Amino acid sequence: MDHASRLRRLSEDLTEPLLVTNLTNVRYLTGFTGSSASLLVTPSGSVFFTDGRYGEIAAGLVEALPATDLVVISGGLNERLDAAFAGAPRVLVEAADVTWSFVRALKTATASKLVASVGVVEAYRRVKDADEVAALQAAAAAGDSAFAQIGQLAPAGATEWDVAEALVGAMERAGAKRAGWPPIVAAGGNASRPHHESGDGAVGSGLLLLDYGCTVDGYHSDMSRTVWRHGTPDPELERVYAAVRESNQAGIAAIAPGVVAGDVDAVCRQVLEERGYAEYFVHSTGHGVGLEIHEEPWVRRNSEDVLEAGHVVTVEPGVYLPGRLGVRIEDMVLVTTDGHQVLTHASKELSAP
Amino acid sequence: MDHASRLRRLSEDLTEPLLVTNLTNVRYLTGFTGSSASLLVTPSGSVFFTDGRYGEIAAGLVEALPATDLVVISGGLNERLDAAFAGAPRVLVEAADVTWSFVRALKTATASKLVASVGVVEAYRRVKDADEVAALQAAAAAGDSAFAQIGQLAPAGATEWDVAEALVGAMERAGAKRAGWPPIVAAGGNASRPHHESGDGAVGSGLLLLDYGCTVDGYHSDMSRTVWRHGTPDPELERVYAAVRESNQAGIAAIAPGVVAGDVDAVCRQVLEERGYAEYFVHSTGHGVGLEIHEEPWVRRNSEDVLEAGHVVTVEPGVYLPGRLGVRIEDMVLVTTDGHQVLTHASKELSAP
Repeated sequence: MDHASRLRRLSEDLTEPLLVTNLTNVRYLTGFTGSSASLLVTPSGSVFFTDGRYGEIAAGLVEALPATDLVVISGGLNERLDAAFAGAPRVLVEAADVTWSFVRALKTATASKLVASVGVVEAYRRVKDADEVAALQAAAAAGDSAFAQIGQLAPAGATEWDVAEALVGAMERAGAKRAGWPPIVAAGGNASRPHHESGDGAVGSGLLLLDYGCTVDGYHSDMSRTVWRHGTPDPELERVYAAVRESNQAGIAAIAPGVVAGDVDAVCRQVLEERGYAEYFVHSTGHGVGLEIHEEPWVRRNSEDVLEAGHVVTVEPGVYLPGRLGVRIEDMVLVTTDGHQVLTHASKELSAP
Repeated sequence: MDHASRLRRLSEDLTEPLLVTNLTNVRYLTGFTGSSASLLVTPSGSVFFTDGRYGEIAAGLVEALPATDLVVISGGLNERLDAAFAGAPRVLVEAADVTWSFVRALKTATASKLVASVGVVEAYRRVKDADEVAALQAAAAAGDSAFAQIGQLAPAGATEWDVAEALVGAMERAGAKRAGWPPIVAAGGNASRPHHESGDGAVGSGLLLLDYGCTVDGYHSDMSRTVWRHGTPDPELERVYAAVRESNQAGIAAIAPGVVAGDVDAVCRQVLEERGYAEYFVHSTGHGVGLEIHEEPWVRRNSEDVLEAGHVVTVEPGVYLPGRLGVRIEDMVLVTTDGHQVLTHASKELSAP
């Protein structure tokens, strides 16, 4: 990953200093993957702050970055930040990341005016470069590989938790790393809870909803499939499944550069409206995927985000009939210069081994 | 876990409404384990806010809680919060949890004065009840069980990452769940980085530093061991190891109710000072452990936190000679009414199979 170019570009675009505290943004700009760091980016250079645990690692990273000083903190961060502000009249602060406590304390330590700023680095992160697309493709492929083995990974006697671990194991064998969230494996009536936590019950031989992902180089995959195993599904489930599948496909077909993300959401809802299930679609259609599992742009009702080539978003309509059944089908889709490319290729047949 | 009693006690102690947004605090008070919720606790009752994904789960939880209403949000949270504030002149807000953006937006939606508040629920969480101690003991025992198998889990040809996964597997076989952070497995010179990320290199047959944990019912274990395998360790490593072990034991011996946590840190540093290694101890001595892996009280330089029966803290001095070697020994310790009880029992011999 070419962190130096990203940092250089941000620095060139800025007209006043920006204090980057969001660790994902710090990683995007520097490659740092630890738990304690912040980065002051100014038009003339940057300062990387971390603590003693990461001093050695940070020294190695900073060497590869343009005009970046390293400050290893022991004790008061605020005084060191003020020194780095170097009397700047205003400093942009990531208001959606810093806590109210942080701002209250920093205000007492500096004469620079702290200015609430949202989404500066995130705007760069929306458009994935070639390295990022390659990582996202590899992560999606690991998810596909796991799904292709579902017959072996999910025998009827396995618990939801067993199947969740088996999916992770299959993705790891495909070269990916475990994501920070466990797979959702929801069997039977549990599938009616969109964010069910995998439990100790056996998955049995009927309805099974899977929502899972992994990471490659820190980039996430995210996909959902719903299947019926062994025998003939309930006719209502078949109707719901057909509606969700059509909704998913219509949403994907709507994706192209210049399209407003809220319109993709509307397309998915419209299909479910026509089938009488709109009220059971209780979440958003999708979200960007990258270093975070959920990031900009947002594919939801009234979202004004405009899709651009290089965006990667999910399309994941679902219908949930409380206590009875649930269906969700989720794909990752790359926006290309002339349309879109689906990154997840797992089967969408309702009947599975 | 008796969430109803915890919520009732907080509600009785409060003199004005508290908006709990920290998800760990919400879990502590309600049992909710999802990713989207907040809880308004007032002297006369509570309101639980979540979104449509969690409506069904939340309805079940709220039923078991005292005088708690459920609001399932779709759309603007701030207007619903203002309605629940019910004209209260002041509302306490968890300033260390909410973002600056959140506060700025909520201020425009309510006439109630938002008051920055820090650590109200965390103060209750410091003292573990019997159910919590049982969960922490079970988590610590799973860590011990994994360490007892280290000879089999870490053959010389295995990578650090393999060993990390093997440790997790062993803890899962002992009935625990994977923690949200991966084990630190640092072989040879990698051990000199206190927060090394496990990598693809083989662990070999010499120095191996392990720092890992798991969860039981959401409660964390956290332990570190450093070992030398197969043959005679370097004499300098033996000296460092003896110093760190003595520091760890002195810190544990200092733990009792009424003791100031900063004094425990000082005891550990004093031992290393006498051995000439104080400057290589670049982190804190320890931290509380519970629903969070790092929580109050803080066992660090100048900490004024006073230990009480029911606290569970780590004691984890370490010495790191950059690029050469690193040693850390970490135990979990329960403060009891008449002293302390160590929860981790894994061997502290330097030589291991």
